[in-house]
Amino acid sequence: MKPLAIITGVGPGTGAAMARRFHAGGYRVAMIARTADRLAALSGEMPDSFAMPTDVSDSADLLGTLDEIKERAGAPKVVIHNAVGGAFGNFLDIAPDVLDQNFQVNVMALLHLARWSAPKMAAEGGGAIIVTGNTSAVRGKANFAGFAPTKAAQRILAESIAREMGPKGIHVAYLMIDAVIDVPWTRQRFKERPDDFFIKPDAIAEEAFHIAHQPRSAWSFLTEVRPFGENW
Amino acid sequence: MKPLAIITGVGPGTGAAMARRFHAGGYRVAMIARTADRLAALSGEMPDSFAMPTDVSDSADLLGTLDEIKERAGAPKVVIHNAVGGAFGNFLDIAPDVLDQNFQVNVMALLHLARWSAPKMAAEGGGAIIVTGNTSAVRGKANFAGFAPTKAAQRILAESIAREMGPKGIHVAYLMIDAVIDVPWTRQRFKERPDDFFIKPDAIAEEAFHIAHQPRSAWSFLTEVRPFGENW
Amino acid sequence: MKPLAIITGVGPGTGAAMARRFHAGGYRVAMIARTADRLAALSGEMPDSFAMPTDVSDSADLLGTLDEIKERAGAPKVVIHNAVGGAFGNFLDIAPDVLDQNFQVNVMALLHLARWSAPKMAAEGGGAIIVTGNTSAVRGKANFAGFAPTKAAQRILAESIAREMGPKGIHVAYLMIDAVIDVPWTRQRFKERPDDFFIKPDAIAEEAFHIAHQPRSAWSFLTEVRPFGENW
Amino acid sequence: MKPLAIITGVGPGTGAAMARRFHAGGYRVAMIARTADRLAALSGEMPDSFAMPTDVSDSADLLGTLDEIKERAGAPKVVIHNAVGGAFGNFLDIAPDVLDQNFQVNVMALLHLARWSAPKMAAEGGGAIIVTGNTSAVRGKANFAGFAPTKAAQRILAESIAREMGPKGIHVAYLMIDAVIDVPWTRQRFKERPDDFFIKPDAIAEEAFHIAHQPRSAWSFLTEVRPFGENW
Repeated sequence: MKPLAIITGVGPGTGAAMARRFHAGGYRVAMIARTADRLAALSGEMPDSFAMPTDVSDSADLLGTLDEIKERAGAPKVVIHNAVGGAFGNFLDIAPDVLDQNFQVNVMALLHLARWSAPKMAAEGGGAIIVTGNTSAVRGKANFAGFAPTKAAQRILAESIAREMGPKGIHVAYLMIDAVIDVPWTRQRFKERPDDFFIKPDAIAEEAFHIAHQPRSAWSFLTEVRPFGENW
Repeated sequence: MKPLAIITGVGPGTGAAMARRFHAGGYRVAMIARTADRLAALSGEMPDSFAMPTDVSDSADLLGTLDEIKERAGAPKVVIHNAVGGAFGNFLDIAPDVLDQNFQVNVMALLHLARWSAPKMAAEGGGAIIVTGNTSAVRGKANFAGFAPTKAAQRILAESIAREMGPKGIHVAYLMIDAVIDVPWTRQRFKERPDDFFIKPDAIAEEAFHIAHQPRSAWSFLTEVRPFGENW
Repeated sequence: MKPLAIITGVGPGTGAAMARRFHAGGYRVAMIARTADRLAALSGEMPDSFAMPTDVSDSADLLGTLDEIKERAGAPKVVIHNAVGGAFGNFLDIAPDVLDQNFQVNVMALLHLARWSAPKMAAEGGGAIIVTGNTSAVRGKANFAGFAPTKAAQRILAESIAREMGPKGIHVAYLMIDAVIDVPWTRQRFKERPDDFFIKPDAIAEEAFHIAHQPRSAWSFLTEVRPFGENW
Repeated sequence: MKPLAIITGVGPGTGAAMARRFHAGGYRVAMIARTADRLAALSGEMPDSFAMPTDVSDSADLLGTLDEIKERAGAPKVVIHNAVGGAFGNFLDIAPDVLDQNFQVNVMALLHLARWSAPKMAAEGGGAIIVTGNTSAVRGKANFAGFAPTKAAQRILAESIAREMGPKGIHVAYLMIDAVIDVPWTRQRFKERPDDFFIKPDAIAEEAFHIAHQPRSAWSFLTEVRPFGENW
């Protein structure tokens, strides 16, 4: 039977590209997001894919979805946490609850995903858990007060899980995207920028697929990607 | 009038040492912790100090306490967030709620403290917000899954606030303690260790007092301290 | 015509594995090392490969070799600096000259390689410069005083070159190997260790090949690799 | 007898400020730089100070000077390596030898200073070695190719020495200055900038003096300083 990949945050950009990449690479794909319509459309494109509308910030909803996936498709080989709660504004601008809510999506959902999937993967001989992040995971700019702390927490939680599960054959990795992703709303927002300014979801998905299949003799934890012209 | 320092997490170790150090340095001190008895005893030692029993993870309680402090003592010159929610165990061992609860104490309470105090400090010409942390702020060891993510988030939130408020005259700093602190329970737990193994609360407090008074031409954000013999 | 890869430090481990991997991937390979015999033997295995015995710490020798390669095989598409000068011992143990000598091999040779190759690559539409390192590039342990500083310098020089040449289509990357590499002398030195303890040269070479061919929309600068069971 | 501080790089800015600060703090001061006149003038200001014109990139000259200091003034309690070799330009712009020459000043001179002084300090019950750096120690910007690698190497060498000598009572610290220092030539170069833009040599010297006297229960290795308005 084909291996199963579970992907959260399957919106129009990275998540959909990852679903397509893993599907093309021989995986069945369970897709999680809040928006049912988009998932249904994507699922229509790909046989052996499952649309699982879910709010990952609601742990009961998330765990219910995961159990349903397991019933329909078995244990996953790969889990990708790409869902993200974001915010813009300095610490005075933001509503305090925004930081808490982003923590639920970015960190608590990862904890629940890992607790649910890691033992199942280990029992079946291994697997990979990949988390997508950005430079907020290593740096707190003034206007990312409601977001950056949760990405830093997410990276450190992933690192903590990686150290526990590596020796048990589970590869946990953090893919840090240092660029503006090419999706409709960023194209709108950065209209004046050339095509090369944007990192392509397909390129991100390709790197995620690579990481998920590194030989266990040479695993990466933190991988950064940025377009060739990025000023970093 | 003597300047005011507000300190959270005034337990038997670092918090009490900081209260004493700032008091000795000419500050009135408002001390926050959950345990009323200890605060009362400390307050008895020091004129111009206030015992403010509070659960910092409860934002209404915290904000109420801060308003009460303001009424009694005016705006603070220094705020130190030393309260900490901790946990031990890998991501499978811990109860998921523990991570969330530690986030409330370590991160959300800092956000509330900063939102409440920074504008008041800026209005009065400046001040300092100091946060105490440890190496979990930069590293996720396997058995710190319920704790390290929240300290990383705390460091990044502090950095974000520092970048916003620095130009407005508020010095935000993160004091990273890379050692076991000398308090009764750690002495019990590491009985076989020599005295030099433990970092002294008084030495930490001294460094915090130094940071709070650096000339504004040369401010530190991240300061690490460890005993001379520490293996790092 | 097949693209050309130039690789320094082609000894029995990573360098030879990289030569084989790029050769298998359709490259002609120019191999640089001090030991002529080993290069000759490897070259005998692979058509379209060149044995170029050279001391990379001697800039005249290195530049002469590079010019000779260019005459025979044209400009490179990929340059890999894998040659390494090492040392063991704390700052009092080592002969001071050891640090200087390692600087010549690890840093000055990279500077010469990049100055010679980057403009040629840019003129031909792009290319990749990959440097292999290890955790000494980010950390100075006591017994690596004669080595770690030069790897840190190497990483930062590579970063500086990456920032300059990225927008010109040259991908500069640093591949940080956090493990003991599986070569005869390490097997001898760590006899009691299981096979999984060692990182495989083939796995490192595979990652280098991947990095050299990342789409330019998603380039990595720093990539770390370690075996699944590594304690980090 | 008053303790002795040896300071390299005593030019018009940080070095002179440090000499004055340690002198004011009760030290005899041995001042090292290439320019004899300036040292003589400074020495004229301060009794118990020694002008020692020396090229620190010449190890024989440096070691000769150190031995002469020892003969005149005994073993040092504090050594500060503030001499710096700099350069501006990307890896193609610079003359390759510039990188090597900066390595001699920034790294090899530190190695010689530490090898000469650390055993003497340990024999007399302790001391401090402080190195001044800047953000090039952690980051390679394109136009710092001839400089940043050597500061990164310097930081990592200092770290390696710190780990070896800490348990023997020698405090090694790296003081990272993230700003433009207020000296005549930077005032000329950044004419349009307000006074607050520049970090004051006196403030840097104050921090160095603080670090040199931290209680051994709470030593810092890396300390960063920047003006309150710095954009970081």
